Amino acid sequence: MAPDARQKRRITILGSTGSIGTSTLDVVRQLGGQDRYEVLALTGNGNVDLLAAQAKDCGARMAVTADESRYGALKEALAGSGIEAAAGRSALLEAASGEADWVMAAIVGTAGLAPTLAAARKGADIALANKECLVSAGDLFVRAVAAGGGRLIPVDSEHSAIFQALEDDQRHAVERIVLTASGGPFRTWSRAQMADVTADIARAHPNWSMGLKISIGSASMFNKALEMIEAKHLFDVRPDQIEVVVHPQSIIHSMVGYVDGSVLAQLGAPDMRTAIGYALTYPGRSPLNVDRLDFAKLSRLDFEAPDEERFPALRLARTALERGGLQGAVMNAAEEVAFHAFVGGRIGFLAMADIAEAVMDRLTHLPPAASMDDVFAADEEARRVAAGLIG
Amino acid sequence: MAPDARQKRRITILGSTGSIGTSTLDVVRQLGGQDRYEVLALTGNGNVDLLAAQAKDCGARMAVTADESRYGALKEALAGSGIEAAAGRSALLEAASGEADWVMAAIVGTAGLAPTLAAARKGADIALANKECLVSAGDLFVRAVAAGGGRLIPVDSEHSAIFQALEDDQRHAVERIVLTASGGPFRTWSRAQMADVTADIARAHPNWSMGLKISIGSASMFNKALEMIEAKHLFDVRPDQIEVVVHPQSIIHSMVGYVDGSVLAQLGAPDMRTAIGYALTYPGRSPLNVDRLDFAKLSRLDFEAPDEERFPALRLARTALERGGLQGAVMNAAEEVAFHAFVGGRIGFLAMADIAEAVMDRLTHLPPAASMDDVFAADEEARRVAAGLIG
Repeated sequence: MAPDARQKRRITILGSTGSIGTSTLDVVRQLGGQDRYEVLALTGNGNVDLLAAQAKDCGARMAVTADESRYGALKEALAGSGIEAAAGRSALLEAASGEADWVMAAIVGTAGLAPTLAAARKGADIALANKECLVSAGDLFVRAVAAGGGRLIPVDSEHSAIFQALEDDQRHAVERIVLTASGGPFRTWSRAQMADVTADIARAHPNWSMGLKISIGSASMFNKALEMIEAKHLFDVRPDQIEVVVHPQSIIHSMVGYVDGSVLAQLGAPDMRTAIGYALTYPGRSPLNVDRLDFAKLSRLDFEAPDEERFPALRLARTALERGGLQGAVMNAAEEVAFHAFVGGRIGFLAMADIAEAVMDRLTHLPPAASMDDVFAADEEARRVAAGLIG
Repeated sequence: MAPDARQKRRITILGSTGSIGTSTLDVVRQLGGQDRYEVLALTGNGNVDLLAAQAKDCGARMAVTADESRYGALKEALAGSGIEAAAGRSALLEAASGEADWVMAAIVGTAGLAPTLAAARKGADIALANKECLVSAGDLFVRAVAAGGGRLIPVDSEHSAIFQALEDDQRHAVERIVLTASGGPFRTWSRAQMADVTADIARAHPNWSMGLKISIGSASMFNKALEMIEAKHLFDVRPDQIEVVVHPQSIIHSMVGYVDGSVLAQLGAPDMRTAIGYALTYPGRSPLNVDRLDFAKLSRLDFEAPDEERFPALRLARTALERGGLQGAVMNAAEEVAFHAFVGGRIGFLAMADIAEAVMDRLTHLPPAASMDDVFAADEEARRVAAGLIG
């Protein structure tokens, strides 16, 4: 839905209290705040104090906590502000399927699937920060966006880079997409060294400040594996057109190679606000107060081939892409269970990929998803099998 | 003039026997040759054997040598082929202002000005490889292209990169353009070391195989200085929006920085055919048989701030940009005279910039060019003053 230039753009932020949500509110403020944007709804989870403060700050019409038990606290925090408070799953879905022109989909995990899908069906432009929509429900989700008539704009720095480097109407001339990967904190470690790491060691990411789940996923390169699957759905390329290159500095956020040998790359400081701003202003660009790249100071950018022996998640992503169907959902769910087991000290770092692979191999028989119910069923089944393997 | 998809695209190559011209013919062959392109004219200089062979190979209607004394030899070489032979300056201008949809402007030096301008006025799309059109006659030339109604597509690898990284309709959102420079063979040399170099040493370029003039210009960074001036006219940016960064591997061909902090870059193997192909297929892209970048093999890309003390040509370009008017023409002409004096062993390597600067300072009084005659007059005046300084 294109914004009406004479009116404020109506936006909703699903998952406003997380890192992406907070950055989105900063970008909205930088780009004119309430002069240019009308915030229909913010949604969050248990942190209702932050949610209420954000809602007041941006003049949101409504704030929704997904956690029904926090309704009273949210209502109290918003008392006298005129901002409507709501709670629970159906309130969240209602907020997601409101009259927004643009929806930031930043709810993490499988919980983000239903609300993002609701927003897509309603026809809002979707700024997509949730991985599961594409990893677990790729075909269904892409079809839902197309049917709704909104635009799908990736917010992940890698996919935003590819989206920016993709020329309109030249998608047929794309030869390959090159996803860059920092390589994470264990880029140069052997498998023997990785075998003994704890969650505290694994969460120390070299370039980005992130949550625990994403940090561990970066260390195992599971994030990159999921991004490969996302890229397939976002850009409609074949698995063999998706290349991963390790680039420790995370300055080149990703690239597109064309049939004439030309490669277009998007670069920037490691700051999510550039990708968020682009998603909000696309196809235009507006000034943002983020760090500029100083190439002389950067001095050098390095590249290495990824090692699928040491980082088997990348190999699993290729397997999932080749098998298609619900293997992405299975891989993602199994890894989430394995991640929690790792963080809880019940399995080692390397066992996460082993478990994901074993679950994927066990669930090759699932037919392609005909509906979201199939996706949820596969997700549950994968979690059950993974839990059983962990014991 | 947009090509009619049902018809062959009519093209003319000005300067077909040089390096760019030869690569252009290879690209035309790769992209379908006579099935897709009708070559109206090839033009060259004294090498009529190559010119005739090229004309036969691509099925050109006409071959023109700028050297009148070579008319007989050209006619003989084309005997029986049905290809028309012509010679001399007026024949060249006639060929340039033919009915071509697309003209490759690859005549080197001031000699390229009049024919390229003629093609622009006629309304052909101009694939611009000649530097002087923008350096010496920037405003006039850009206006001529606009008046003619054709498109101006740069072929220089740097400007092609910027052209590719520029998003349509987002020119207002450009914050800076970043021209990359290999730094040439003397990148790490001190001025004392450079003082004694000969033309043979200076011509050894690290990445590109080029003619003597371009090689020496790379060693002195005079080429980059001219590219800064070209960039100003091509992309309508202020002098302070033009940045130069030394990037010895010449893989990132140049970049565009946007107001949101995002930087788009074009990368490729050092092969002019990618830029030529893009100029021919713009805004589309067609498959080309050129080397693909292998990032893991590249391993690293380096960046350094350029040193305007050691490479004063860069400083002179800023001066020329700030002064405007005919200073670009003066700088270019003075440098050409100084170049010949250096190659002839009459002045040292560092004296080239000294002479260019002295001539620029002497000719600040010239009013902005109202016509090409003013450009030619400034060019001649600068050459005269430069020759006088060299003695």
